[in-house]
Amino acid sequence: MDLAEIFDELDPDEVVILFRLLYKDQAAEVFSYLSTGRRKAIVSAIHVKLLEHILDDLYFDDKIDFLEEMPANFVKSLIASAPPEERKMINQFLNYPDNSAGSLMTIEYVDLKKHMTVRQALDRIKAVGVDKETIYTCYVLDDTRRLEGIISLRRLVLSDEDQRIGDIMTNDVVLAEATDDQEEVAEMFRKYDLIAIPVVDAETRLIGIITIDDIMDVIDRENTEDFQKMAAMEPSDEAYLEAGVFHLARRRIVWLLVLMVSATFTGGIISRYTALLGAVVALASFIPMLMDSGGNAGSQSSTLIIRGIALGEIGLSDWPKVLWKELRVSLLVGLGLGAVNALRMVVIGQSDPALILTVGITLVCTIVVAKMVGGALPIAAKALGMDPAIMAGPLITTIVDAIALIIFFSIASALVL
Amino acid sequence: MDLAEIFDELDPDEVVILFRLLYKDQAAEVFSYLSTGRRKAIVSAIHVKLLEHILDDLYFDDKIDFLEEMPANFVKSLIASAPPEERKMINQFLNYPDNSAGSLMTIEYVDLKKHMTVRQALDRIKAVGVDKETIYTCYVLDDTRRLEGIISLRRLVLSDEDQRIGDIMTNDVVLAEATDDQEEVAEMFRKYDLIAIPVVDAETRLIGIITIDDIMDVIDRENTEDFQKMAAMEPSDEAYLEAGVFHLARRRIVWLLVLMVSATFTGGIISRYTALLGAVVALASFIPMLMDSGGNAGSQSSTLIIRGIALGEIGLSDWPKVLWKELRVSLLVGLGLGAVNALRMVVIGQSDPALILTVGITLVCTIVVAKMVGGALPIAAKALGMDPAIMAGPLITTIVDAIALIIFFSIASALVL
Repeated sequence: MDLAEIFDELDPDEVVILFRLLYKDQAAEVFSYLSTGRRKAIVSAIHVKLLEHILDDLYFDDKIDFLEEMPANFVKSLIASAPPEERKMINQFLNYPDNSAGSLMTIEYVDLKKHMTVRQALDRIKAVGVDKETIYTCYVLDDTRRLEGIISLRRLVLSDEDQRIGDIMTNDVVLAEATDDQEEVAEMFRKYDLIAIPVVDAETRLIGIITIDDIMDVIDRENTEDFQKMAAMEPSDEAYLEAGVFHLARRRIVWLLVLMVSATFTGGIISRYTALLGAVVALASFIPMLMDSGGNAGSQSSTLIIRGIALGEIGLSDWPKVLWKELRVSLLVGLGLGAVNALRMVVIGQSDPALILTVGITLVCTIVVAKMVGGALPIAAKALGMDPAIMAGPLITTIVDAIALIIFFSIASALVL
Repeated sequence: MDLAEIFDELDPDEVVILFRLLYKDQAAEVFSYLSTGRRKAIVSAIHVKLLEHILDDLYFDDKIDFLEEMPANFVKSLIASAPPEERKMINQFLNYPDNSAGSLMTIEYVDLKKHMTVRQALDRIKAVGVDKETIYTCYVLDDTRRLEGIISLRRLVLSDEDQRIGDIMTNDVVLAEATDDQEEVAEMFRKYDLIAIPVVDAETRLIGIITIDDIMDVIDRENTEDFQKMAAMEPSDEAYLEAGVFHLARRRIVWLLVLMVSATFTGGIISRYTALLGAVVALASFIPMLMDSGGNAGSQSSTLIIRGIALGEIGLSDWPKVLWKELRVSLLVGLGLGAVNALRMVVIGQSDPALILTVGITLVCTIVVAKMVGGALPIAAKALGMDPAIMAGPLITTIVDAIALIIFFSIASALVL
């Protein structure tokens, strides 16, 4: 990993030269940690023999990840030279959708039989374990490769050597299917404190395992995706410094366009009140403060709810609790802001009581509405099968802006004029 | 875990009744997964003998977590009845600051000696392993408990039984100190794909280990903290549904107040241009769109940079790359938005070329400034030793609002009047 980190800071040319200097066995390990850009540079420059050696040394899941990054022609020619059995397997694994359990799993696990003794099991682990991604959880299969149970190396080492695997294995196994979403799989790891999960097909035949190091990456990626969605961007896996300018611009402009066009509506509200604005010009100067406070208050609520849903702490049925809590919090926060704002207005010399009252009432109403909207929309999104992360700051702000202005001008019409 | 999940959905009274029905050994495990509220209810209702049994069964890190939640008096009386050696240890562990490596570690590890053979090591693991939190990594200590190396159970099981631990152990160990920040420790796990890390004191004496299940929680908590800071809240560990209304309000109001008072400045800009606004009332209707687009564009950039810094993908020295990239992206995005906006204005009947040009130029300038500010501030915060997550949407929006309005009115003064 430390070598890979150094490599990622070098120019592609230098990487290729240095890579050739590595021991053959080091090469595969460093390769598995490198960024896509560096890998491509190396693949195009090294001898095909060395490449084959590296690919042989990679764990199957890392090999699949690598093949997914490479151009289709390259992958085809590589697969063509593989033995038929492996070719079939590679094609099968390449076909699992991104973000599915299937795309995370590897095939290097230890399989045992129920009738084995602990001693036989340990001998088998010793014989085959060196090439396995993990030996800490072993999988007990019947003759048709159906998963009958699992047994940890811990249990094996701590058990009497003559006990039968079938008697000491765990039958009640947490497992995933290849089509499960990777987020669900991460949730299983989190909930049950596991270090590996078996993946089975519809007949509970074991087709692979997922290990926790891959799940750590998934959790990082899923969080990154949520951060990006919540900031009104289309999510992308690509590292910022490696991403192209056009790619970045495209991911950002769509939501900005949507939100900009939505703001037409907000502008329309102001247009309707130009007479009022002309009569009391001071009103205009409060628009930014009201819009921003509403938007920020709404973002706070939606962020807490989105995160609560993501961590499984808040469910659909909690919506009455959420709204009741947001109502009380927003009244407290709104009254606090209103009081400080009144003070602020007096300090900057705007001591017209009607104006102070108008701004104060608007502020309280806006905060309450913002927090109710911010609390409700993520849960509504979840109920509709959408990603709650979309209902975050930018969208909430646009909605709350319009509501804040309507409240402001309505109250101002009544009180100030 | 499944039982604990059911318990967390019940009323505290029901929890106490059901908890008494558990087998003694189940009780400790379920207890370790329960929420703080449920634990308190149980502790106040069960017999002290059962409580002592549960505490005996908990791993040391879970016990410390539990004691940290409980009232000081209760902890005192519990510790008083513990043997002196354990009392000293508990007090030491309770003193590690929150968020430090010390607060995460446990003392249930397997220690080995260099001169042992693999067979002797496996025998020792068999003898002491059942009470250890992990046996998958074992720690090789000298007579003064200094850490000389580590060896994985994998290596032990796959090695010849007569080999000496000193010959096959790993000397080059990734380790943490008790005062290290938990975020740094999580980064080590992520980077080196580890399942446990040893924690040492200043003389490299082993004082505890941290296992990956606790790190998964840390990663969740750190991400939650970032989400909260980025939405202008003071971070808190407490689950939303368990948090009190006053607690929630206090965490939210501070930043809202700061941002509201900052908006005085933005309002001041509008006040200075009331003459212009009075003359061309249509200008006011573009304020929300310009403010929102700027804020959203800035949030996008700052979110990507904050996340990149958190994942270690973007470092301080990358700032020229970031600004250059943001400049190009923002020009693309700004021109795109400007073009669509011109179309939008024509469609809604505002076809005054001077007005279209004013809004268009302002839009491009605002997006460019917003994205440069959004890209620069998180890196600046990092350079100053502050948390980049503070430089997110809400703060960026407030800054960009002011800049957007100054640009807008300056251009409008020149072009429209």
